[in-house]
Amino acid sequence: MKPFMGNDFLLSNDTAATLYHDYAAKMPIIDYHCHINPQEIAEDRKFENITQVWLGGDHYKWRQMRSNGIDERLITGDASDYEKFLAWAATLQKAIGNPLYHWSHLELKTYFGYEGTLSPETADEVWNLCNQKLATKEFSARNLIRRSNVTVICTTDDPIDSLAWHKQIAEDASFDVQVLPAWRPDKAMNLEKPDYLNYLTKLSAVSGIKITSYADLKEALRVRLAFFASMGCKVSDHGLEFVMYAPADESNVAAIFEKRLSGEMPTLEEQLRFKSAFLLFMGKEYHRLNWAMQLHYGTRRDNNTRLFRAIGPDTGFDCINSINCAAELAAFLNALNETDELPRTILYSLNPIDNAAIGTIIGCFQDSSAIGKIQHGSAWWFNDNKTGMTEQMTSLANLGLLSNFIGMLTDSRSFLSYTRHEYFRRILCNLVGTWVENGEYPADMKFLGKMIEDISYHNCVRYFGF
Amino acid sequence: MKPFMGNDFLLSNDTAATLYHDYAAKMPIIDYHCHINPQEIAEDRKFENITQVWLGGDHYKWRQMRSNGIDERLITGDASDYEKFLAWAATLQKAIGNPLYHWSHLELKTYFGYEGTLSPETADEVWNLCNQKLATKEFSARNLIRRSNVTVICTTDDPIDSLAWHKQIAEDASFDVQVLPAWRPDKAMNLEKPDYLNYLTKLSAVSGIKITSYADLKEALRVRLAFFASMGCKVSDHGLEFVMYAPADESNVAAIFEKRLSGEMPTLEEQLRFKSAFLLFMGKEYHRLNWAMQLHYGTRRDNNTRLFRAIGPDTGFDCINSINCAAELAAFLNALNETDELPRTILYSLNPIDNAAIGTIIGCFQDSSAIGKIQHGSAWWFNDNKTGMTEQMTSLANLGLLSNFIGMLTDSRSFLSYTRHEYFRRILCNLVGTWVENGEYPADMKFLGKMIEDISYHNCVRYFGF
Amino acid sequence: MKPFMGNDFLLSNDTAATLYHDYAAKMPIIDYHCHINPQEIAEDRKFENITQVWLGGDHYKWRQMRSNGIDERLITGDASDYEKFLAWAATLQKAIGNPLYHWSHLELKTYFGYEGTLSPETADEVWNLCNQKLATKEFSARNLIRRSNVTVICTTDDPIDSLAWHKQIAEDASFDVQVLPAWRPDKAMNLEKPDYLNYLTKLSAVSGIKITSYADLKEALRVRLAFFASMGCKVSDHGLEFVMYAPADESNVAAIFEKRLSGEMPTLEEQLRFKSAFLLFMGKEYHRLNWAMQLHYGTRRDNNTRLFRAIGPDTGFDCINSINCAAELAAFLNALNETDELPRTILYSLNPIDNAAIGTIIGCFQDSSAIGKIQHGSAWWFNDNKTGMTEQMTSLANLGLLSNFIGMLTDSRSFLSYTRHEYFRRILCNLVGTWVENGEYPADMKFLGKMIEDISYHNCVRYFGF
Repeated sequence: MKPFMGNDFLLSNDTAATLYHDYAAKMPIIDYHCHINPQEIAEDRKFENITQVWLGGDHYKWRQMRSNGIDERLITGDASDYEKFLAWAATLQKAIGNPLYHWSHLELKTYFGYEGTLSPETADEVWNLCNQKLATKEFSARNLIRRSNVTVICTTDDPIDSLAWHKQIAEDASFDVQVLPAWRPDKAMNLEKPDYLNYLTKLSAVSGIKITSYADLKEALRVRLAFFASMGCKVSDHGLEFVMYAPADESNVAAIFEKRLSGEMPTLEEQLRFKSAFLLFMGKEYHRLNWAMQLHYGTRRDNNTRLFRAIGPDTGFDCINSINCAAELAAFLNALNETDELPRTILYSLNPIDNAAIGTIIGCFQDSSAIGKIQHGSAWWFNDNKTGMTEQMTSLANLGLLSNFIGMLTDSRSFLSYTRHEYFRRILCNLVGTWVENGEYPADMKFLGKMIEDISYHNCVRYFGF
Repeated sequence: MKPFMGNDFLLSNDTAATLYHDYAAKMPIIDYHCHINPQEIAEDRKFENITQVWLGGDHYKWRQMRSNGIDERLITGDASDYEKFLAWAATLQKAIGNPLYHWSHLELKTYFGYEGTLSPETADEVWNLCNQKLATKEFSARNLIRRSNVTVICTTDDPIDSLAWHKQIAEDASFDVQVLPAWRPDKAMNLEKPDYLNYLTKLSAVSGIKITSYADLKEALRVRLAFFASMGCKVSDHGLEFVMYAPADESNVAAIFEKRLSGEMPTLEEQLRFKSAFLLFMGKEYHRLNWAMQLHYGTRRDNNTRLFRAIGPDTGFDCINSINCAAELAAFLNALNETDELPRTILYSLNPIDNAAIGTIIGCFQDSSAIGKIQHGSAWWFNDNKTGMTEQMTSLANLGLLSNFIGMLTDSRSFLSYTRHEYFRRILCNLVGTWVENGEYPADMKFLGKMIEDISYHNCVRYFGF
Repeated sequence: MKPFMGNDFLLSNDTAATLYHDYAAKMPIIDYHCHINPQEIAEDRKFENITQVWLGGDHYKWRQMRSNGIDERLITGDASDYEKFLAWAATLQKAIGNPLYHWSHLELKTYFGYEGTLSPETADEVWNLCNQKLATKEFSARNLIRRSNVTVICTTDDPIDSLAWHKQIAEDASFDVQVLPAWRPDKAMNLEKPDYLNYLTKLSAVSGIKITSYADLKEALRVRLAFFASMGCKVSDHGLEFVMYAPADESNVAAIFEKRLSGEMPTLEEQLRFKSAFLLFMGKEYHRLNWAMQLHYGTRRDNNTRLFRAIGPDTGFDCINSINCAAELAAFLNALNETDELPRTILYSLNPIDNAAIGTIIGCFQDSSAIGKIQHGSAWWFNDNKTGMTEQMTSLANLGLLSNFIGMLTDSRSFLSYTRHEYFRRILCNLVGTWVENGEYPADMKFLGKMIEDISYHNCVRYFGF
């Protein structure tokens, strides 16, 4: 029996262990997609206790607490941080096979030096240890980033964001990690939302372009794209329920937008046409700016409307949406490719059953403008676990070139989540090591070691141009 | 090489073996969903030969015999029981990797003490041995149940059922296993069926409520719900091609029902509206009665209409229906949750590709009214095999809390199928044991042993309130 | 660590190794579905260099080269064969986990006796070795077939094909491998294509039936079916985006066809009705002729229209189409079964998530007219790898009888692809051997050895009647 989460955690053979310890472990981290609040970096936030760090906004954990029958008061309610921590400790013990069990213990070990396991019995011990350490300067946001060997962080930002915190960080010579914005224009695209016109007013203000037509909208976005580019942005992101492709004439799209401006709601079909045109416009802009485009799709959000009203979005009530959109996705990428304006693109579906379809779609649009131009993104959100990562990488290897994979991101709000890169790298090394041990690839450690380093770090540098 | 189906069958390491032999094996069985005929328990049926037990109504086996090119005469036709048994023996030998191979040999070993393998060469030996044993009183329905350490059986019953056999069993002091009804109102919901009005007539008669409106239908059902509750019913079940959610005003639903009463067939869209309303009504009633709700969906039944006409339903001509209904399922649960009337709910899809979507949907509706309130049901029907169970539990563990899983049911018509619980428990223990051996969970046998006992039995007692 | 692709490649235990080496390896090959050009066999083509053999029309390899950022000039362009080979060698090294890595090295080892690995460092060595060998008569098309122990090859042919090359091969006493046509009438079915009327003109000419009605179309096809049958055809094939079933009256179908004849394009719904009728007609003809019917579905072709215009179809721009059509597929088979005219049928979906649905659909239509009458076809195209084959066979075993599986085909244009049978057989033997070693099936080597031989060869002979 292997020790619990020991030195060779997830590494089932010698080749896997060598690949991890000699090649993967030392590589820096590029977190090209996360939800960290840049203000916390700018202000070098400190945390009062482990509940703030772990349970402040982590809806992954909240879901499990609810699954364990914990009262909402102890999750997002007015219970004390200590009470919430105890409730979490009791829940975590029951999370066998869940990535939270591994992530939490990796974090306890890596950052707090705690080698035990969290359970109701050890909860006080962990509470005290963590809180003592959190009080030291080593546990400020910036020092956690530094200790994690992070070189680049891409946050997720709305076009109307001032990027003031990014600016402040960039100008602070005492902190040399790149903290770059990433462009996420969902609010500019989702014209069916009740507050869309209000959003346009803000976009008008921040861009200096009064938006009275679709042409104005595009112009305002171009102004903001230029600003984001000036702040070092190199990557965009879209959150989509599904990928749509309903082509329409520019004049028709303009009319739909004007209908919405006038206060009338476009039909569902019109909404799809507008959104398709919006995505095409954005894609071409990304190509022009040499940015990468991320498409995250397959979600259905805020399913529990009673709790949504009570505690808002991103609180643990999202699920997989099993809409088939392989054909639309292919047609959308093809439309951009027709005029040779398809940017480097990363595809993520929340539904793991889409792995194979994605793996075959990316192969249709690769070309010599970039190595691994179209990427199958790392196992996302609900799939961010041993099974999901193994399946995504196996699928990618079966259908494409794993060697060119740009690898892992955290997708997290927490400064402790960099251990997810360790988790990913161990799984990657185990997959590759197992193939080698089984005689499915030569034991060419020079090539394989470089490949592991590339997937851990260098592919990302090359792909995004950091 | 491990011996064929030996003591450590499916247990690939020491921790798995310990968990199974020391914790799982001894636990009683709660069969909370099966298709056993309560008359056979009430009358303590005996069986003349192994063909009656094994091939009498087991469409799983019939399918495989047809796959082997066996003539229908030897399956459901007028061939002798002996001939049918020989045809099955020849088929079973070819069923490598099929759960029937394991189930059949578990049954031969556990109930008949036969340690060999069934094949054309041993068919006579097995035929004679089984038939001798079946002639003894130890092999009556009740004694098979007793020997299997079963404490609760929930049959599957129509609202119009008299539950006379259940009553007789409950009143029989010589048999202390609880045999409870489960409520399955499909016939009251499926208004598109040709015999729907005829069914309503029967429901009127048995409930004492003359059904001339949708309000009457609901009242009649409430009468029967109360009767089922008085007979110890604690769980319902719905068999659905897909989960629909087409909300409609009560008056509209009433009009659709009256249209059907008048002899006119509602449109497809109207049918969906009626069924959605019906399911919502039922869900709220289950919540009121503190029953659990089971939704079994993803089936397409009676695909071979030529054979359906010849030999009827449930004869081995059903398949998976790959309709995407994750969004409707989430919306349906949300509608019940809006008024805090969502009962404890167990979701089963016949399509294993729905595992991940279900795993994320259940997480949206958990709350403190029950531990593991919304359950991802055990691998069902075509998925009831090593692969399917492993995938369902792995998915559940990745996305939720395996510890709170209510575990296995037989879904069977046979008194020998309780060995499926052994099969399930071995697979469960192997999954957990492997994680522990790999260092993915601490070797805390006290916690793990209890967890295995809980999943095998105690979670079920707590969840249903048996 | 096992040696790279050594004697026990993919065989993880002794039983697997015994099954492969003692039973599977020696069996001949029936390639019942491929895309080999019969002219190359008739003329006994020789190849100038390894690029012609490997990269001439192999869009699997082209996709990976594009994924590696290789310029199209070095893929399908005017670069020299040597340059293209170097580009491929650099790409292949990066294809860890991809079946092309294994196929390529199996081919190098089996046909060229090369035991090393292809990489930029060894590219010249491999180039020279292969080209020297290709210049010898042992490497002609016919000798490659002979060396591969192939007994039957079924090409893929259009109804208007003269089958002249097949005739020439059949009449050549010096070559005793059966090279039979297979009937693929996609062009006669796809009435939405711009060149459909032109195709009908050709069909009229070759059949001698002037096509002015749907009845004429059917008559012309019957003439060609008879001709194909006279040439030894025993199997058909259909390439479908999805399986449709939109039943219509014969008169309606005739009207739709006449609409198209008149130059007007039928609506999408009309197209589906025509195609459904066409497929039903064909299926009944296959039943009459005692042919097997193959349905390949789930593809979306030519997604990259810019490259399609430049270099045509089948150049590496196809993807999985994730349309759910389980219900239509079941209804279509049922329609043929209604009149007892369902031929032996083999179902392949390009989307591996359809495995379970297919496995349950085939079980609905098995009968005693053939052993394993309805087959779940071997893992196809993008799924033709270790993962895909293992999953397809595991699914088949879970849901049906693996023993009756007709096994592997190449689906290839190359004379070196017969090593894919070795790849398949190793994976099959490993799957079965692992079950035996784990105690999940008795170590009955007599039965298992025969089963492996059957799946490798004899089942195919029996199923198709070769």
